[in-house]
Amino acid sequence: MPELHWKTAITKVEPNKICIRGYRLDDLIGKVSYGQMVYLVLKGEMPSEADGKLMEAILVSSIDHGATPPSALTAITVASTGATLNASVAAGILAISKFHGGAIEECMLLLKYGMEKIISQGSSIKQAVQQVISEYRNEKKRLSGFGHRLHTDDPRTKKLFTLAEKCDVSGRYIQLIREFESELAQSLGKKLPINVDGAIAALLCELDFDPILANAFFMIARIPGLVAHIYEENTRYKPMRIIHPSDVEYDGPDEREW
Amino acid sequence: MPELHWKTAITKVEPNKICIRGYRLDDLIGKVSYGQMVYLVLKGEMPSEADGKLMEAILVSSIDHGATPPSALTAITVASTGATLNASVAAGILAISKFHGGAIEECMLLLKYGMEKIISQGSSIKQAVQQVISEYRNEKKRLSGFGHRLHTDDPRTKKLFTLAEKCDVSGRYIQLIREFESELAQSLGKKLPINVDGAIAALLCELDFDPILANAFFMIARIPGLVAHIYEENTRYKPMRIIHPSDVEYDGPDEREW
Amino acid sequence: MPELHWKTAITKVEPNKICIRGYRLDDLIGKVSYGQMVYLVLKGEMPSEADGKLMEAILVSSIDHGATPPSALTAITVASTGATLNASVAAGILAISKFHGGAIEECMLLLKYGMEKIISQGSSIKQAVQQVISEYRNEKKRLSGFGHRLHTDDPRTKKLFTLAEKCDVSGRYIQLIREFESELAQSLGKKLPINVDGAIAALLCELDFDPILANAFFMIARIPGLVAHIYEENTRYKPMRIIHPSDVEYDGPDEREW
Amino acid sequence: MPELHWKTAITKVEPNKICIRGYRLDDLIGKVSYGQMVYLVLKGEMPSEADGKLMEAILVSSIDHGATPPSALTAITVASTGATLNASVAAGILAISKFHGGAIEECMLLLKYGMEKIISQGSSIKQAVQQVISEYRNEKKRLSGFGHRLHTDDPRTKKLFTLAEKCDVSGRYIQLIREFESELAQSLGKKLPINVDGAIAALLCELDFDPILANAFFMIARIPGLVAHIYEENTRYKPMRIIHPSDVEYDGPDEREW
Repeated sequence: MPELHWKTAITKVEPNKICIRGYRLDDLIGKVSYGQMVYLVLKGEMPSEADGKLMEAILVSSIDHGATPPSALTAITVASTGATLNASVAAGILAISKFHGGAIEECMLLLKYGMEKIISQGSSIKQAVQQVISEYRNEKKRLSGFGHRLHTDDPRTKKLFTLAEKCDVSGRYIQLIREFESELAQSLGKKLPINVDGAIAALLCELDFDPILANAFFMIARIPGLVAHIYEENTRYKPMRIIHPSDVEYDGPDEREW
Repeated sequence: MPELHWKTAITKVEPNKICIRGYRLDDLIGKVSYGQMVYLVLKGEMPSEADGKLMEAILVSSIDHGATPPSALTAITVASTGATLNASVAAGILAISKFHGGAIEECMLLLKYGMEKIISQGSSIKQAVQQVISEYRNEKKRLSGFGHRLHTDDPRTKKLFTLAEKCDVSGRYIQLIREFESELAQSLGKKLPINVDGAIAALLCELDFDPILANAFFMIARIPGLVAHIYEENTRYKPMRIIHPSDVEYDGPDEREW
Repeated sequence: MPELHWKTAITKVEPNKICIRGYRLDDLIGKVSYGQMVYLVLKGEMPSEADGKLMEAILVSSIDHGATPPSALTAITVASTGATLNASVAAGILAISKFHGGAIEECMLLLKYGMEKIISQGSSIKQAVQQVISEYRNEKKRLSGFGHRLHTDDPRTKKLFTLAEKCDVSGRYIQLIREFESELAQSLGKKLPINVDGAIAALLCELDFDPILANAFFMIARIPGLVAHIYEENTRYKPMRIIHPSDVEYDGPDEREW
Repeated sequence: MPELHWKTAITKVEPNKICIRGYRLDDLIGKVSYGQMVYLVLKGEMPSEADGKLMEAILVSSIDHGATPPSALTAITVASTGATLNASVAAGILAISKFHGGAIEECMLLLKYGMEKIISQGSSIKQAVQQVISEYRNEKKRLSGFGHRLHTDDPRTKKLFTLAEKCDVSGRYIQLIREFESELAQSLGKKLPINVDGAIAALLCELDFDPILANAFFMIARIPGLVAHIYEENTRYKPMRIIHPSDVEYDGPDEREW
């Protein structure tokens, strides 16, 4: 029998005591926000309250985008066959990949590559951005995080950036992505605005997350939305209905203030 | 071609405007907690701040329980084969089912059944609990939400109930589950304490959630934990290692205060 | 450390020797059909050649049913997001559940229940069938395995039963399901023909499989079909297209003989 | 509403008539093997009987490899939580990825790259192989399809190649992979024998399949094995047991002849 002993640095579980990254879980319940906990469990350190607020904002901004994204369609198609909740949720998660959510990671890589140019070459932001755009074009790589099928001025982007200003983030990645936006506008002759993936990418760079975790935030944020669609499917429709991917009308509460 | 037009009451997406259950998403970002949003998207109404706090507490309490629960083992086993993040997360979700997380739903059904007896028969809490226990025993049904392999006094339970008292919940389901706990102790001659599943079940009853959603809260809460384990697997270990299900040692930060 | 030693009765793997249910795998390659292997690995015994033929026929009959069943739609929706092959296939599998494929298990339970009545009560087939139908109706349970949205005379059913006659199956479950079909026709005043799920259910009863494995045969058989649809999606269409669930036209080879 | 009409070249479904790649399904049932059907649905043409035999042999050879591969461990871990059959199978499929099964695709790419060199440069097999090995080493790429943790002389490889000789395959990819094997032996000073992934890769090249489908054959073949392990878990063990990944003993039938 080989030696199979191994180690984990995330959570220590002992009788009547659970410590996450060194902090007693029962001390944290009621004291920290879920956004702070997500940061803690993934990065290993407790964020400032401001960074925790940013995390919550990111999660809130991505909780749902209606019934037509492929993750929602997949989840309700599976739910409609009589599958269990976990099977329906898992199927939705499987649809969150390269082209659905994946732009966050690609945009983080773009921003980190630009920032590296600024730091290592001492370029100005403008120079770095122009150079990166030109390199991407030469290699026929897509610049992710800009433009949206539906939103020409994504309300989530604006709000996330406003909030970031109020929190203690440095803002250098936000400045950088805005420079990309204006360079793109100039070179294309039309605005290709920062979309929500781009906004989240900039914030996750500010919070210094590893880009390979990018899509995780989208998955974490979107699960409650997927569950809501699955629950609606199970309680409102009969099994095995044919689900149209776009001919769907909203009939919930009218717009209201909170 | 059949008429396939259908309706959803969750989210309205229009150009540059997203409304969730009637509330503009950009109004909510930075203003409400993620816990409130989870409640909103699932129940259709915005919770009070207190109920939102309770939601966050539930999510915080369940974010991780080490590397040995089957959902974590499944996620890292799949990650170890070189699978993508979404595949690894989905596999972990598939392990959250009847016997892993499922106790929350079963305990909610138990509590709701007890409450129904109290209301419809005018029984005292004690009578109702005794009657339900005896019925469950006759039908050889398990009473879920009590006892834990490891924790004889689950620190999460105590904290969640303390917090609930501070918030505006009625407390009648907490009172009810405590009555179950004492009746069980008496009839068994040893304490079978309320576990975290039982505590969450009581709180979700207080918040009036449908029991069929119970496991959803566990899935929502646990995803960041699964991601942390997957990330650790991918960055710390080489692919295809043989993963022992219990011989794992914690080597993260020492216990610390926050 | 608890004693974790455990046992499996399926496959013995030693250096340079693999035995499945006792048979050397290298002896079987090229000698037995895949249908025989499926039977062997699931039941523990090697089937007769005739029963192996029946297994192959069952698998062949269910390999694909076009792009519109929910398992195919789920698989291609996930594939369209840029997901990996295993993620796309797994999503398709998740759609094979209670209402999609599940009729095979329900029909096996129906047939076994009827057969039990015949054996234990000494009823005639006709009496047993009438009694079962009446019981199901009283309990508002669906009689699965009859009727099809599209096929009034399912070509697969006829062929599977013709083939079964040529093989060495007893035929008593085929006789039984046919009796159900005629009783239903008489009591409903219109034909509700045995569908492919019903036909497969009868054959799996003849082969004495456990009903809880029923949907496994559908999954095993359908995987190549799912892969074909995923491959077509990836090679023929661009990512993230909106996939209509029924407005799809066949443009492959014209009907041809083999 | 955008025009969503689309096309598929796989299966035509009409009332009482199903044609797969142009062939009537009811004509095929009982006439062709499942291996032939897998080939037909994936490649679009009916294979010769010999190629069909090879397909069946590939599927038979990979149907199971005991309880310790990650796909089996994942499937039974999920099954042990009380998950449904489709959830357990899907979890197993998610573990079939880059490092588990993925060697088939990588070896196909290796062989196709070598064959291209032979054809385009007019190199001898030996020259081409030496050149490819040297290129792979310079780029630090792994040569997949050789060596096995357990089998020094994989019985499946030998049998698959013997069978291929009897069938009508050209044998040029088998010759090529054997040349890789001997060059590797010479340059490493010890034998690194063709494993079953390498053998299947060579056969799939002979059958002219697209390498991106490689892992599909492993998934198709292995599903019955996964189901067998899930069924054993559900019928033999109690839920939520701790599953050791290697301390498992075979207790099925003794070795026997067929």
